[in-house]
Parts: sequence; C-alpha cells; structure tokens
Amino acid sequence: MAKKAKKSSESLVIMTELVLPNDTNTLNNLMGGKLMHWMDIAAGVSAQKHSNRIVVTASADNISFQRPIQLGDVVTLRAKVVRSFSSSMEVYIEVFAENIPSGTKFRSHSAFFTFVAVDQGGKPIDVPELIPETDEEKELFDGALRRRQLRLVLAKRMKPEEATELKSIFVDQNIAKAE
Amino acid sequence: MAKKAKKSSESLVIMTELVLPNDTNTLNNLMGGKLMHWMDIAAGVSAQKHSNRIVVTASADNISFQRPIQLGDVVTLRAKVVRSFSSSMEVYIEVFAENIPSGTKFRSHSAFFTFVAVDQGGKPIDVPELIPETDEEKELFDGALRRRQLRLVLAKRMKPEEATELKSIFVDQNIAKAE
Amino acid sequence: MAKKAKKSSESLVIMTELVLPNDTNTLNNLMGGKLMHWMDIAAGVSAQKHSNRIVVTASADNISFQRPIQLGDVVTLRAKVVRSFSSSMEVYIEVFAENIPSGTKFRSHSAFFTFVAVDQGGKPIDVPELIPETDEEKELFDGALRRRQLRLVLAKRMKPEEATELKSIFVDQNIAKAE
Amino acid sequence: MAKKAKKSSESLVIMTELVLPNDTNTLNNLMGGKLMHWMDIAAGVSAQKHSNRIVVTASADNISFQRPIQLGDVVTLRAKVVRSFSSSMEVYIEVFAENIPSGTKFRSHSAFFTFVAVDQGGKPIDVPELIPETDEEKELFDGALRRRQLRLVLAKRMKPEEATELKSIFVDQNIAKAE
Amino acid sequence: MAKKAKKSSESLVIMTELVLPNDTNTLNNLMGGKLMHWMDIAAGVSAQKHSNRIVVTASADNISFQRPIQLGDVVTLRAKVVRSFSSSMEVYIEVFAENIPSGTKFRSHSAFFTFVAVDQGGKPIDVPELIPETDEEKELFDGALRRRQLRLVLAKRMKPEEATELKSIFVDQNIAKAE
Amino acid sequence: MAKKAKKSSESLVIMTELVLPNDTNTLNNLMGGKLMHWMDIAAGVSAQKHSNRIVVTASADNISFQRPIQLGDVVTLRAKVVRSFSSSMEVYIEVFAENIPSGTKFRSHSAFFTFVAVDQGGKPIDVPELIPETDEEKELFDGALRRRQLRLVLAKRMKPEEATELKSIFVDQNIAKAE
Repeated sequence: MAKKAKKSSESLVIMTELVLPNDTNTLNNLMGGKLMHWMDIAAGVSAQKHSNRIVVTASADNISFQRPIQLGDVVTLRAKVVRSFSSSMEVYIEVFAENIPSGTKFRSHSAFFTFVAVDQGGKPIDVPELIPETDEEKELFDGALRRRQLRLVLAKRMKPEEATELKSIFVDQNIAKAE
Repeated sequence: MAKKAKKSSESLVIMTELVLPNDTNTLNNLMGGKLMHWMDIAAGVSAQKHSNRIVVTASADNISFQRPIQLGDVVTLRAKVVRSFSSSMEVYIEVFAENIPSGTKFRSHSAFFTFVAVDQGGKPIDVPELIPETDEEKELFDGALRRRQLRLVLAKRMKPEEATELKSIFVDQNIAKAE
Repeated sequence: MAKKAKKSSESLVIMTELVLPNDTNTLNNLMGGKLMHWMDIAAGVSAQKHSNRIVVTASADNISFQRPIQLGDVVTLRAKVVRSFSSSMEVYIEVFAENIPSGTKFRSHSAFFTFVAVDQGGKPIDVPELIPETDEEKELFDGALRRRQLRLVLAKRMKPEEATELKSIFVDQNIAKAE
Repeated sequence: MAKKAKKSSESLVIMTELVLPNDTNTLNNLMGGKLMHWMDIAAGVSAQKHSNRIVVTASADNISFQRPIQLGDVVTLRAKVVRSFSSSMEVYIEVFAENIPSGTKFRSHSAFFTFVAVDQGGKPIDVPELIPETDEEKELFDGALRRRQLRLVLAKRMKPEEATELKSIFVDQNIAKAE
Repeated sequence: MAKKAKKSSESLVIMTELVLPNDTNTLNNLMGGKLMHWMDIAAGVSAQKHSNRIVVTASADNISFQRPIQLGDVVTLRAKVVRSFSSSMEVYIEVFAENIPSGTKFRSHSAFFTFVAVDQGGKPIDVPELIPETDEEKELFDGALRRRQLRLVLAKRMKPEEATELKSIFVDQNIAKAE
Repeated sequence: MAKKAKKSSESLVIMTELVLPNDTNTLNNLMGGKLMHWMDIAAGVSAQKHSNRIVVTASADNISFQRPIQLGDVVTLRAKVVRSFSSSMEVYIEVFAENIPSGTKFRSHSAFFTFVAVDQGGKPIDVPELIPETDEEKELFDGALRRRQLRLVLAKRMKPEEATELKSIFVDQNIAKAE
C-alpha cells in the first residue's frame, strides 16, 4: 500500500536549548558532543514526523564546528526531512547560536543525519515519499543522491567507481548545502 | 620552539560506559546522539594527551551506525591521535558493544574526529608531530591527508579540483579505515 | 532613556523535548515538575529575547495538568511575552504533546510565568514596552493586569479590596486565557 | 469501603538538595524551574504517603520567588498533605534556603500542589480523609476550599459566580497561607 | 579561638530521594554507586551544618548493601555528625527504603563518612567539638575512636599494633553501630 | 556444573571520565560521592565480565580520599576481579587523576568492592573461580580472605573472635593493598 507523499515543511522541528554548565568544557564553551546529541534528537523527531514511526539513527554526515558557543547562549536547531529512500530519511539540521544579552547571533553550522523507520520489532518499514517545494528544498533533495553515495562509499558499501553521482563533486562544488 | 614528536600509542584512551535508561529510545536502544557525545569526550581526552593542551572539537567525520546497542550493554571506546597538522589533530575512535550476560560482543563502528589545541584565551597553538609505529597506524596516518581534503571540500573551504589526494578515492577504496 | 517597544512575536520561542525515561514516574508518565522545568526555560529564553537581558523567574501562575504525557512523546512548548511592566515581563506558554507513532496529538495546558530583567549585579532594569498585534495577543495583553493583581493578592503584596481589575473575575469569566 | 482517616503529620516529607552548577543560571542563581521540579517530587512523595498509592500531579498553584538562591546553597523542602477531596490531595510545600558557610538562612517561599491518587491503570481512586491537628493545619485545611475554587475558576471548570468560598477573598485576606 | 561546642542534633539532615529510571540497573534495582552519591551529599551537608564551613569528603567506611531498593521506591537518608577531631568530622548516615504503594518499608543500611572542614583556599580549619546527648549518640561518640583507628590502619597511616582502641574489636562486638 | 576458572586480567575494565561542572563542589573539586558512583560502575562491569551475569553491589570497603581532583581533570579507573567466593566477587579498583594541560598526574586511591552475580529473578548464582597470575594479583588474592572477614565482622555477620585471618592484621600490616 502506497503512503501519501509529504512535504518537507510537515516535518519541520524547532528546538531551543540553553547552554548549561554541564554542557561546557573548561573554556566555558559548549562541547561538540553535546551539540551532536541535541542534533540527533531534533533530527530524530523530524524523521518521526515524516514517517509517523519509531526511527533509529543510521548515520551522521561530516560536521564542522567553526565558532565556539558559550555558557548561557541559546542554541536553536531547525531540522526537516529533505529526501526519503524506501525506509530511510535524510534530515537537514541547521544550528544557530545566540548570546542574547550581548546581542551576538550567528549560524553555527549545518549537517545531514539519516534515520531508518522501524516497526515495534525493529524491522525497517517504508516511509512516505518527500515532496520538496521551495528552491532550497529542491536543491537539498537533488543533492541527497550524491550525499548518499558518499555515505555508502565511506562505509565501504559502494565501490567508488560506481558512485556516479558523487563523481560530480569534482566538477561541481555543490556537494553539500551544509557549510 | 619545536615540540618533541609523540607516538600514537601515547594518546590512547579507553573509555567504558554502561548504557543506562536515559541513554535509550523507546526501543531500548542507545541513541546515536548519546554515543556521539561519548565519542567526542573520549577523542577529546586523547587529543589533550597528545597536545597537553585544552582542545576544542573542530569536526566529526561521517559516522555510520549499523547495529543497535541495547540498554544494559557495555560500550567500550578506544581513541588515539593518528596525525597532527600544526594546531589540529585527527583522532581515530573505535566503538565496541558487549552484552555480557548474553555473551554478545561486536565492533559497532569507527570514526574520525578532529580537535584544535588552544591556549587559555582560545587561540590555536601548535601541537607535537605524530609518529605512527604499527602498520595500522601508518595506514591511518597516510589516509589522514585524504580525509582532511574531504573535510575541507565538504566545508567548502577547498575546491574539489584542488583536492588531489582525495581524487584517489575513485581509484583506491581505502578512503577511510572507518567502516 | 526609553527603549524601543517590541512586538510579542519577536520573543516567540519554540522548544521541542523528547520524553526520556528519567522524566517519567512509575506509570511511564512525564512528571509535572519536569514539565514545569522545561516551561521555565522556554519562558525564560522568551523573556531574554524581549529584554536582551539576563532574566530571573519571578513567579509561575496556576498550572493545571489534565491529561498524562507519556514516555517517548514529543513535547512542544511555545512561549512569548504578552506584556511588560517596567522591569518585569509576563510570558504565556502553551504546551502540546504528541505521540507520533500512534498519531495522538493534544494541547496539554498553558500557563503564565513572570520574569524580571536584571543587570550583571542582579539589579532590576527596565525592559521595552510590549506591543500586541493579533486579537489573541491583545486579549492576553488586557488580561495581564488582572493576573498581576491576582499574583499580588496571593503573594499578600496587595489587599484584595484594592485589586479593582481582579474583581471583574466575578462578573467576567475571562480571568485567564489559560485553560 | 471507607479508608481510615490520617493525620497531616503522617505525610510529612523533608527533602534536602544541594544547588549544583547545572541547577543555576548565568548569575549562579538556582533556576526557578529546577526548584519547581524538586517541589513536585517532595509534594508527590507526601501525597504517596497519605494515600499509599501512585500519584500524578494535577496542579501547581501560584508560586512567587522573591529572593535568589545561590550555587552551593542547601535547599530544604517540607511538604505535607493539608486536605483531601475524594481522589485528590492538596499538599503544602515550604522551601528554605541556607548558605551555611556565610550563615545566611531564609524561608524562600511556599506553595500548594494537588495530586490525584491512581491505580495501576491510571484510574483515580479514593484516598483517606485528612485530619488536621495543629492550628496551622486547621487553617490550611479551611483555606483549601477557597484555593480549590480558585483553581477551578482559573481552569474554567467553575463559574466565578459559583465560587462562593472564593468570594471571601475580597473581605478576608487569608486566601492563602502561602506568602 | 575556641569554637562553641555543638550538639549532634544540630547537624541532623534528612534527605528524600525518589528512585528514577537512570538510578537503576537492568533488574530495576537502585545502583549502589548512586546511593553512595546521595549518602555523600547528605553527610556533607550535615558536616557543613556542624562546622559552618565548606567541607570535603575524607573517607567512607565499609558499606554493606543487603537488600535491593527498587525503581519508584522512596529513599530517606538521615545524617548527623557524631564526633569531631580538630578539622575532621565523622558523620553517621542511616538509609531507609520504602515502597509506598505496596507498604514495604525497611532500614537498608548505615555507614560512617568523614569530612574535613576547609577554608576558601582548601586548607583544613578547626571545627566545633561535638556534644553527644542521647544514649545512641554517646555510643556513636565512643565508637568513633575505634573506627578512626581502623581507617588509619586501613589507609596505612597507623601501625596495627598502635591501634589500641581498635583491638577491642576482638573482645567487643560493638565496633560499629552500622549493620 | 563447574564453570571454567578465569584469569584476573580477563575482567580488566578501564574507564575514563572527564570531571564536568556538575561533578564538583563549590571549591571546583570532584565530589567524593560522584567518584564512588564511577567506581561502582567500573567495578560492576568488571564483575559482569568475570561472571557473565548481571551483578549487584554487595559492599564497598573503606575508601580514603587524600588529594582533591579538580574540574576539567581526567579520571581513569582500572578495575579487576581479584577473588571469587561462590556467588560473590571482590573487585580491586585503582583511581588515577590527571590534569593534562598542567602535566599533573597522580594515583588518587584504591578500594575494594564486592558484587554478587544473580539470575534474572535476582537469585545468587555461582561464578567461576579466579586464577591470580602476577605477584600483585597473588597478593590481592591472598588478602581477600582477611578483607572478607573484616567485612563480615563490620556487618556483624561474623564474631570478631572467629575472624582468624583478620587477626593477622595486628601482626601483619598488609591488611589491604589499598592505600
């Protein structure tokens, strides 16, 4: 039975976290691992919304942290599903940090996580197709194939020479919307 | 002033964690984000050991989770620095899961994280060179250049056509020791 | 020096939380105290956004929990400032709960918290006026006086006979938008 | 079958907490939400003691925080049931804060929470009557009706004009023992 | 300058904790380490009360757990200082567990912890003498010397042959009030 | 059915923890209770490895803390089973602390914990014999009888006069390897 296709915006999740002492290292900066933990939760809820299923994390793509986030800062995560492949979903997560009293606000980074929808016994189960609407969503949807091949090559589950989409990386800079 | 080069084995960190209820999802499986949090701490301590400095997470490479880890399982993480580049260090982390009463034990996955050594003011500071010793360490050391180019391309800080080492991915499957 | 008045929508905060095992009682239901903890954080970030200041919780109004929220549910909190009084702000928080796999979704409850903006030494400091825009915001803005008198009477800082606005409670049911 | 009535003192719960870093905001003050979380646990254990049942939080009355509690302070909570109504119980909680090295000690605030006793399936179940003994307990017992009507009016489950007890608020200041 | 001696009862601390999922092992029993963590906090607050100082844990005596405490149980800890020695204090802690819905209640175990009072720089500082009042307090006060010698012998800071008080262990069973 | 005897080294567990803000007191020193919590987990995993069973903490021997461990320090715990007695196991735990940026490193203390292996219903179940190999392991193995008698005497489950091994404490300083 085919499931009704869903829009990317239907899976949008916004999560706000306050950086507390235990989230920080000795420089009072948010630890990268804690942020990845929040990203996984936000992205997982988004994948749940798209699939209406329990989901499990399948992979996290490269994440590059460029600027420290500090104790007391407000971290906002925006996650939405950008493409689905039978039982798996690719979720795009953007992270913003804001020090409200000082008026500092910046986009920290973005990343892609993939999740697999499973039934109560943990078996993969099909999810609805994703319909991109905005230009950004369409670009993310198109790039998903390349990112998927990169994941498979890195996980040694696809031979590099078979990753036809991925090869475009060397002629096309747009491998990832993530920066 | 040049710092004395150090061996990979000097930065070895072994971390053992017990999967507690709050680390799990509704299927009683360890959440991916919690595991990434542990990986970041183990890898960060390893980078501290190599550099004798405070370190901050710079990036986490692709991580692919293939098999669920369950409530009550024992997770063992092994992290060691495999190459250093002026102020940054690449750390290789292997994750093992074990359900002791049932005798189940498996290698869950591996990943590469990079860290930057900083002074008290947060400024990057040079770290010792790394000397690989075993065959595995030499292979990890050699692959570090390719992985570094991949990170830079994905972070849009290097043009794909300039990533000469990375291109070998399409003729050589060994892009990553990680599986 | 007068601060520029701000809209209610500028302080909107959306927070998403996943109910984990440690948040629940022996019936696997979210504990009321944990939910109040989340409400306080969401509302506090909202008050920070309105005032661009550090804020401290001054009060929490009556909260009535009517339906249990369960382990694994997704809780969404929406908070925004609805009125300001010199250094204090009243924040309206709505809480929604959703069990995504089963398709259950409901509005759990709403409440009002007040916060005081303070400087680094902890002294109260003036905040911008709030401008309500929508009908709902205007109704919340108007009701704020009554709720404020109720808080003062309950805290024994105003005599009941002086609570002129509050008396309308006995002729007008709209004491609180909260249900 | 009638249950044996119980005294207020039989449900007394004393809880001591040390304010740790993660409980505080950037001013090193205890966050209001964390304190409400502790109040809910202390009051819930008290309601369990009175009813010998699993209990769920039904409501929390207005709470007014007047003075900051700081990192390292010792917080003492005293909770006891002050009246029961078929399956629900009203619990009175007093909060004291103490900075032992500096000799500072003060009563922070008090509040009323209500709980409902439930069976394993979550269905409400009758609880013993409460017998007040001291003058303070009798006053708290008497005020419970007014507070109950206020809760019902605020939750829009009673019309203000029917809240006959509550009306006494305008001729009698003793609406709440809480300050 | 001599400090005013204080009674044992002045340092009494009562702490109540609810056993939450993350406190338990895979049998749903409270983990011993978590309980020791609570014992350390309760005993430390008691030592703070006696000394009006910051205190640091110096030692924990043998603890023997005889009966499991379960998820959802209420744990009550009672701690009081039973003797002081210049800058150190011995604290006696009793632990009770109660499963309220099932009516189960038992004394789990007791133990002795010692703390040292320190100034802001962490240097030991004298504390008031302790005055035992009840028979139990006098017995605990008297046994403190024996327990102190046992600690010193076990820490290899006293030769067994010099532990004159401790030798009474072989003619007198009352080495410890703890059971 | 006899179980195959196992070596001490087969149960070795290495655990690394980073001291985070919430683990510390107001002097920024690791709290003793938190460290005991980690010791219990490391020792419990070691006992699980020896027995391939679920284990419960039976006792913790005297622990003496001699030097503060600070915020940001790396704590390494090494635990291994040193002797087994039908269903119980004695585990020896050594704790090391390291402040990596300052180059400080020291052995904090050591201790013995005992665990009982249980089946799913919580009933004690026999564990393999332990075979000591190194000189240190043999010494720990031999001392286990004395420590066991001390535990039984302190728990009032053995009369002091029957503790024949323990009496050697007064002629032999080696009661405990722990210092």
